[in-house]
Order: sequence, then structure tokens, then C-alpha cells
Amino acid sequence: MSGLTIWTYDWVPPGPRGFVRDLRLRWACEEAGLAYEVRTVAFDDRATNHLDRQPFGQVPFLNDGDLEIFESGAGLLHLAGKSDRLMPTDPAGAAETLQWTIAALNSIEMVSVPWWFLKLCGNEDKQLTGWLGQRLGHIERVLSEREWLAAGRFTVADLLMADVLRIPTVRSFGSRPATEAYVTRVTARPAFRKARADQIDLFEKADKTRP
Amino acid sequence: MSGLTIWTYDWVPPGPRGFVRDLRLRWACEEAGLAYEVRTVAFDDRATNHLDRQPFGQVPFLNDGDLEIFESGAGLLHLAGKSDRLMPTDPAGAAETLQWTIAALNSIEMVSVPWWFLKLCGNEDKQLTGWLGQRLGHIERVLSEREWLAAGRFTVADLLMADVLRIPTVRSFGSRPATEAYVTRVTARPAFRKARADQIDLFEKADKTRP
Repeated sequence: MSGLTIWTYDWVPPGPRGFVRDLRLRWACEEAGLAYEVRTVAFDDRATNHLDRQPFGQVPFLNDGDLEIFESGAGLLHLAGKSDRLMPTDPAGAAETLQWTIAALNSIEMVSVPWWFLKLCGNEDKQLTGWLGQRLGHIERVLSEREWLAAGRFTVADLLMADVLRIPTVRSFGSRPATEAYVTRVTARPAFRKARADQIDLFEKADKTRP
Repeated sequence: MSGLTIWTYDWVPPGPRGFVRDLRLRWACEEAGLAYEVRTVAFDDRATNHLDRQPFGQVPFLNDGDLEIFESGAGLLHLAGKSDRLMPTDPAGAAETLQWTIAALNSIEMVSVPWWFLKLCGNEDKQLTGWLGQRLGHIERVLSEREWLAAGRFTVADLLMADVLRIPTVRSFGSRPATEAYVTRVTARPAFRKARADQIDLFEKADKTRP
């Protein structure tokens, strides 16, 4: 296999459309001008049908020639190694981009995802809500002082952080004007809009062939 | 400033000793044979006293000459770029190591940390417990088939995954013999034992000068 292939589900219900994480990899490829194709595994039986390729039964995973990489964060860092549009090549810029990419995964999403998961289950938890408020407050302070997280310009860290912060329940958590302006700014990028439209289109087309 | 400096708190209560995340960076340096020093910021007023260097008020952060990097996961990946003992340099080995490093942060810790945080608050949540059980079950399956996560040998992915899995409440979650053997095997490494002992020693010595 040659070139980049992004793997996602062949269908998802309407709710998560526009938010499935293959979007992160599509978006990165669009930003970097990297050619890619999209292929699918079955949404039905997803818990077990591709564990040999994604050991948690999730998507996306990425092929780059013979390489196979799961975890959207790892796929993003892998793609970032191919294009300085995603990550600067100078050591300071690369380190700053790396730290904010990991911050999105392990300081924000580590709180925001369990928080909205419990909220969705009807078990919103006060302690977790307080913790999320603190974390989002820290990000608001940072974003009130700069336009981009790292290196003074758009990087893969912004792609990931904006993707984490644009989840509707997270986006509407309190009044955070700098964060709202940031999410609006980042998601106005043509590469995001194309990636999102393409994902939604795939799932809408699949509606027609669902039994 | 030249060389590697790992920053942590000047003191923590007994509970977290041996688990503060500067240990991850100490351990990586010990594995790789990289010289480093350890410096501290005050534990008291930690919420605000070093936000210019760690925007969430946490530790660790790392200096590498003039570079400053926060997020333990980012520090680990930065250090891994300095030594193939931490990450193979061939593309397949590097990709596999990267994906499992991110999996520790974003597929396991994203569930395990909020789970034990709520448990500690006396709010253990059934949905989160179920989710953690699934994730730990997936890891158990993987570890029952291999000794190391990536590249057929110890890498920074094992360092991080074992550090995530050795948290006592997580370690005692159900019967998972392959995981238990893995955590025992990884934490028997001399580099881990030295890093842990050094961290505990720093905090114990600080007891004597606390007001």
C-alpha cells in the first residue's frame, strides 16, 4: 500500500457527524496539502471487527505506505513530521507545538471528554465540572494573550485544541470570549470546512444503503 | 541555561510521593543515560506561582538548554528524540512507539485519571467504571500477547503506560494477570527504581524544613 489512507467508520448516526476523529487527520492533510484517501470499517460490530488494527475498537487509524498508526493524536504528530505547515522545524517552535498538542490531549480532553460523557449519561458530576472549569479558565487566559498556541502561527496544536474545544457542550461551558473567538477563527479555515463537509457527506451517503 | 533540568514541586504530602509526574522525566533520563538536574517551584501557591511556565499550574516542566517544555507526555517525546533507547529510529518502530505513547495519555489515562479522581472524591461513577473496565480489558488482551507494547522491546511507550497502570487503584482494578506482570516487569527496571527513590528522597528531605 502506498500513500496516506485515513480509516473511519462506514456510517455513524447523525449526532456525531462532523465530530468523528478521522476529521482531525483529514484536516491535517488538507492543511498540509498531502494527498490521502479515506477507507472504512463497518460501524456495526465495531467493538470487535478491527481490534487487530485499533486495539480499542475505535477510529481513526492511518496508513502511511506500510506503516499503520492508531490514535488520532499520534496520527497528527506523524503527519506533522511531513509538513512545516503543521509543525515548525526549528527546535523551539517544534517543542512548543508538541507541548500544546499534548496539552490538548492530556490536560483538556482528559477532563472534557469524561465530563461530557457523564453529562450525556445524565450523571453530570460536580467535581468534574469544577475541574473542567479550572482547565478551561487556564486556556481562556492563554488565548486572551495570543492568537495561536505555538510559534506565533497556526500549527497542529491549534488544529487539535480547537477540535477539542468545539464540542458543543464544551463550547457553551461558561462565558469565555477569547476561546470562542479562537474556535471561530480556527474552524473558519478552509481546510477544516472541507474536512468536515467531506466527513458529513460520507455518512449521509451511507444512509441510503443502510438496511 | 545548558543541559536538562526537570522541574517539580519542592514538597508534596506523603500520598502522592513516588507518583508525581516529574518521575516520568527522571525515569526517561535514567533509561537513556542523559544527565539532568532537578529544580523546584513552591508547592504552596502552586495554583498561581508558575503559570508563566506551566499554564495549568502543574509539574513537571523541562528545560533543555533554552527550550522549555511542559506536559510530561511532551517532555517524554522530546527526550525520546535524543535516545533510541527510548524510541527506535526506524519509521515503523518510531510510529508504533508514538501511537502507544499517545494511547497511554488519551485512551487509558483519559479514563483512568477522572475515574480515580471521582473515586477519591467519594463519587465513584458507574459509567466511568464500566468504561475503564473496557479500556483495561483491551490492554490486558494486548499485553497477554506481547512483552512490550512497541518494536519488540522496552520503549518510552512502556515507561508511560506502566506509569499510568501502576496507580494503586488502577492496578487493583479487577484481575488482569498480563497487566500485573507487565507493571511488575517494567517497574523492576533499575532506572525506574532510581527515579522513584530520588523523588521520594527529595520530598522526605523537604519535610525537615517545612514550617
